[in-house]
Amino acid sequence: MNFGSDNAYGVLPQVMEALARANAGADKPYGADAPTAALTAQFAALFEREVAIFPVATGTAANALALSVLAPPHGAIFCHAQSHIMVSECGAPEFYAHGAKLIGLEGADGKLTADALAAAIDALPRGSVHSVQPHAVSLSQPTELGTVYGLDELKAIAEVCHARGLKLHLDGARFANALAFLGASPAQATWQCGVDVLSFGASKGGTMGAEAVIFFHPPERGDFEYRRKKGGHLISKMRFVSAQLAAYVRDGLWLTAAARANGLAQDLATGLRSLNSIRIAVPVETNMVFADMPVEMAQRLRAAGALFYDWTPPRDGRVLTRLATSFATPKDDVAKFLEIARR
Amino acid sequence: MNFGSDNAYGVLPQVMEALARANAGADKPYGADAPTAALTAQFAALFEREVAIFPVATGTAANALALSVLAPPHGAIFCHAQSHIMVSECGAPEFYAHGAKLIGLEGADGKLTADALAAAIDALPRGSVHSVQPHAVSLSQPTELGTVYGLDELKAIAEVCHARGLKLHLDGARFANALAFLGASPAQATWQCGVDVLSFGASKGGTMGAEAVIFFHPPERGDFEYRRKKGGHLISKMRFVSAQLAAYVRDGLWLTAAARANGLAQDLATGLRSLNSIRIAVPVETNMVFADMPVEMAQRLRAAGALFYDWTPPRDGRVLTRLATSFATPKDDVAKFLEIARR
Amino acid sequence: MNFGSDNAYGVLPQVMEALARANAGADKPYGADAPTAALTAQFAALFEREVAIFPVATGTAANALALSVLAPPHGAIFCHAQSHIMVSECGAPEFYAHGAKLIGLEGADGKLTADALAAAIDALPRGSVHSVQPHAVSLSQPTELGTVYGLDELKAIAEVCHARGLKLHLDGARFANALAFLGASPAQATWQCGVDVLSFGASKGGTMGAEAVIFFHPPERGDFEYRRKKGGHLISKMRFVSAQLAAYVRDGLWLTAAARANGLAQDLATGLRSLNSIRIAVPVETNMVFADMPVEMAQRLRAAGALFYDWTPPRDGRVLTRLATSFATPKDDVAKFLEIARR
Amino acid sequence: MNFGSDNAYGVLPQVMEALARANAGADKPYGADAPTAALTAQFAALFEREVAIFPVATGTAANALALSVLAPPHGAIFCHAQSHIMVSECGAPEFYAHGAKLIGLEGADGKLTADALAAAIDALPRGSVHSVQPHAVSLSQPTELGTVYGLDELKAIAEVCHARGLKLHLDGARFANALAFLGASPAQATWQCGVDVLSFGASKGGTMGAEAVIFFHPPERGDFEYRRKKGGHLISKMRFVSAQLAAYVRDGLWLTAAARANGLAQDLATGLRSLNSIRIAVPVETNMVFADMPVEMAQRLRAAGALFYDWTPPRDGRVLTRLATSFATPKDDVAKFLEIARR
Repeated sequence: MNFGSDNAYGVLPQVMEALARANAGADKPYGADAPTAALTAQFAALFEREVAIFPVATGTAANALALSVLAPPHGAIFCHAQSHIMVSECGAPEFYAHGAKLIGLEGADGKLTADALAAAIDALPRGSVHSVQPHAVSLSQPTELGTVYGLDELKAIAEVCHARGLKLHLDGARFANALAFLGASPAQATWQCGVDVLSFGASKGGTMGAEAVIFFHPPERGDFEYRRKKGGHLISKMRFVSAQLAAYVRDGLWLTAAARANGLAQDLATGLRSLNSIRIAVPVETNMVFADMPVEMAQRLRAAGALFYDWTPPRDGRVLTRLATSFATPKDDVAKFLEIARR
Repeated sequence: MNFGSDNAYGVLPQVMEALARANAGADKPYGADAPTAALTAQFAALFEREVAIFPVATGTAANALALSVLAPPHGAIFCHAQSHIMVSECGAPEFYAHGAKLIGLEGADGKLTADALAAAIDALPRGSVHSVQPHAVSLSQPTELGTVYGLDELKAIAEVCHARGLKLHLDGARFANALAFLGASPAQATWQCGVDVLSFGASKGGTMGAEAVIFFHPPERGDFEYRRKKGGHLISKMRFVSAQLAAYVRDGLWLTAAARANGLAQDLATGLRSLNSIRIAVPVETNMVFADMPVEMAQRLRAAGALFYDWTPPRDGRVLTRLATSFATPKDDVAKFLEIARR
Repeated sequence: MNFGSDNAYGVLPQVMEALARANAGADKPYGADAPTAALTAQFAALFEREVAIFPVATGTAANALALSVLAPPHGAIFCHAQSHIMVSECGAPEFYAHGAKLIGLEGADGKLTADALAAAIDALPRGSVHSVQPHAVSLSQPTELGTVYGLDELKAIAEVCHARGLKLHLDGARFANALAFLGASPAQATWQCGVDVLSFGASKGGTMGAEAVIFFHPPERGDFEYRRKKGGHLISKMRFVSAQLAAYVRDGLWLTAAARANGLAQDLATGLRSLNSIRIAVPVETNMVFADMPVEMAQRLRAAGALFYDWTPPRDGRVLTRLATSFATPKDDVAKFLEIARR
Repeated sequence: MNFGSDNAYGVLPQVMEALARANAGADKPYGADAPTAALTAQFAALFEREVAIFPVATGTAANALALSVLAPPHGAIFCHAQSHIMVSECGAPEFYAHGAKLIGLEGADGKLTADALAAAIDALPRGSVHSVQPHAVSLSQPTELGTVYGLDELKAIAEVCHARGLKLHLDGARFANALAFLGASPAQATWQCGVDVLSFGASKGGTMGAEAVIFFHPPERGDFEYRRKKGGHLISKMRFVSAQLAAYVRDGLWLTAAARANGLAQDLATGLRSLNSIRIAVPVETNMVFADMPVEMAQRLRAAGALFYDWTPPRDGRVLTRLATSFATPKDDVAKFLEIARR
């Protein structure tokens, strides 16, 4: 019963098959291979416009490299105070952007509001060399709490950004889960809302170490390719990464897999809500359930083999836990978990 | 006929099988998994001493991260003027080491000599804040020209380093090929010669994107793990990288594969030497053949489908080419290449 | 009537005389000169212990260089959310510390409390590579609001730091003003409270471009001298900077000058408090008066030639202004300012 | 008898007077003051075109900041292998340019030739992400050996740069000495030859800590002002720096002072050439004399109180020394030095 994280499981069978197929013969290294060339066309079709897509191996690399192109060393990048780039990447964006500053804003359910964002951007003294200058906004979609920005929310934020000359980046480590919740097309949920750059996550959704940075306005990539190389993120046998990404999105696999994970989270939440002692602390919109439960129950579940995180330290006999489901979480694990919780 | 580079081919079958096996079930992410734990023990046995081993996805990341631990921002890192870290990594070491300086030295056949190195180190004004200070030496083993430092050469260089307080790093992108040539054990060819840190290459030898940094004196890792995360090189599903590395060295697979590649290079060199018009420009010790040939011959080979690099631009009707063989280069390709060359 | 900032005025006459004296003859460059050697002895006496003192030209350089020695690239530096290093140095500390992270905490009157600090430090997941790690705390003394940490407050914060292995840095851009308010000796107000490193400001107090970083535990300077050079902050004719610093502290000049500035601020505050329409928003402890006044009054004062800052944008017909006094502010300017305000 | 360096002496009397004058009254800080505004106009007249001029306190800051605007992190900066930025700035340019690479080229008498430069630039693989990309060339004028590029040499190098899209930077730490030798106007010796950016040195010529970066095409300054602040090089009381620079160039003072220093070097060289045992190793064109002398003579001179550097370590009983003269070196010191040498 591993509800620790959605990267606890391996890869989708179709991804493993794609790797095996990609293993035949020789091809050019460093992304000059046929599968990588095909990827650009495939993602252009998927997103219904020309894109520049750059595979990398980790989500932190995707985020940090993307942001380093959007913000100069004297730039400010606005994000949620609890976002992954702010608290879980050991300062990678600051390193890649040469000391640019992340400005973390509070917001309910892990989300920023357009108004709060506008106020924060406007509070920086524009044109004063004493202050970092606003250059980018980075949202997590879904957020660290599994919640999802609606298309209208995205549009409002994008308008705030663009009216002020900022670019809008989306950290989509679990982007498929957000799309499955929104029921929107990839195009609708990104550039049609005003998103400029997307960290397209796939590892959590069922690949091995395959993510991508997607620029919806290709010239804005700037010196991305040099930065990727300089960061040690240009993978020599890139065809294997590209092959995974291709298999991941082919025939809607990514969305089916994400919908499954989201559904399991709903099952889990529904079951837990029926228990008086549990409070679901955050709306369950993707594959995360934040359950506030008695410490005793958490201990009982762990004693029975369940893995999950304490999101905040225990207090007054209760603890806020995070339960993550994935494309490969056994359905029976949910039932078993609920059964133990009910005892 | 792909003699372009040894990273043109995919992975060894045993590596693909290991990936499939690693795909079962769930495990902890970010290297807290069972295969990664086992890796440390396996490499300790392989190298006959306790080691700290850190998997990463690219050789550039391995080199740059390793060197960033060995040299402070005001440090100097000595290397060959034509080494990979100097000319083919877009300044990644300087980026990771926050502006430390690589000092490139000339040396025949891609190798540094202990004497030249000692002279260069001693030429820096020790203790003067105006000058970067010597902290590390990085050798490529084998070199960019495919030549191999003998154990005595390594020992002499290590003595120069250690007598002056410098650490010795080995860029072993093709380390298996060097070992196969030397006929030495991994221990003999590294720490027993005084090597402190090794970039253990495996991608070129038959894995998918699996390299590792190995510290032979584990406390010297310093803040390596934070640097790896900050660089975006902590892979979430690390078990897949670890599983590849484990399969790669199990039962001597890596050395068998490297010996095969080296043997093909010898076959190629022997065949080419028999042609009057060709001059083998560098001793063939691993899987690289540097063949100086008429431009007409290079054109004829390429017209027939052969891929290989011009190492230097054509001049006076001749061109210095680099031919690389790999664990998976078809034996027939060598024969076919020679046949076309002979026409 | 310049109440804009205390760096609007020039230098103390004694400082100008010291410069003229230092101009005689030749001496060694880059701090190997006699005045710089004498400075270490002079400041050791002043602070009643051995110190390592390094002159630099700006306060931002002093802060950023000091912090870069205290925190590694994966380090966290805690400070007030409105501190100078957080909002007025364009990210200099992040640049010098290679992407380390400043964590800004709220606190009344520009001050951090020991409890809030302890909670924030303890909230970081120690030893997790995903998070920056706590390494230093930086306080402004006096704060951006001109308030002063009492010795007990400093001690409590230092205990929080040291119990957790963090170093305590003081941004003393206006350190003399704080000392004059506290009536404590330099030793009492720094290392005897547990301060590890001090950015010793002098420019605002009456020098030309002379600040210093002082390590109270000299071995903790680490590679400071290399970092200073690498940052372009090793001044060739350093004797002129050292001569200024020497003159500044000789015979208590710095404290006399600061006491004068503090006194003028008190005069100003006293005068303004007598007006019903004005609210003094922050306790006046040094040379800053934060006066909340009608917009109309601010306009009237400016029309009469008074210079001062709006601290926050005008709202509802009122504005929070900052009035700074200095060692050289004419006493008559205070009287004149009050007279215009009263009209 | 201080022939150690031209920064051993203090400042020109006119500079000290300018400081005293600038000390009157209050003005805006951080370069918004009247003297700094006047400086732009003064230097535009001096250089006969619109310029953007930014005062800083050190030559290393000027060079590193200028280059950081000209070259991105993946950029290559070509310079002489023995230039100040290469060997005497502790890697400051690499730090400020975030890991860009300095490529040092050899050249007689401290100078690069247009042909060697063109060959080196063209040897980098353009557009390959594996290699740093050529962005700038930095020449020292005069060179570290005191020699001076002729206007034709400068023009030829500028043509090589501009034909390839590179910018040309001049490290003019002793620019006045070069001008005095060339007998050219500031305009003729810079932008009229194709120089894009100049590190305008003044400290060595007779100021206290006053240098400037001058962009001859102001829009090319890019984000220079943010970088200066972020590097801690925005001096709060900048009027004192600007006042020095203004006094330095007013009425040709800088050139008169430099001509004096150059003349003393000629006197020194002439005197030394008359001694059989001495060889002048480099053409004496500015204020440096490189004298190859018996070790015994160097010892005798030092015993008599003469200060100067060994440029290279003693060998075979002889040593290459560097003797620097300055605007303030007493004429008698030259005579005395020669007299002792002759004994």
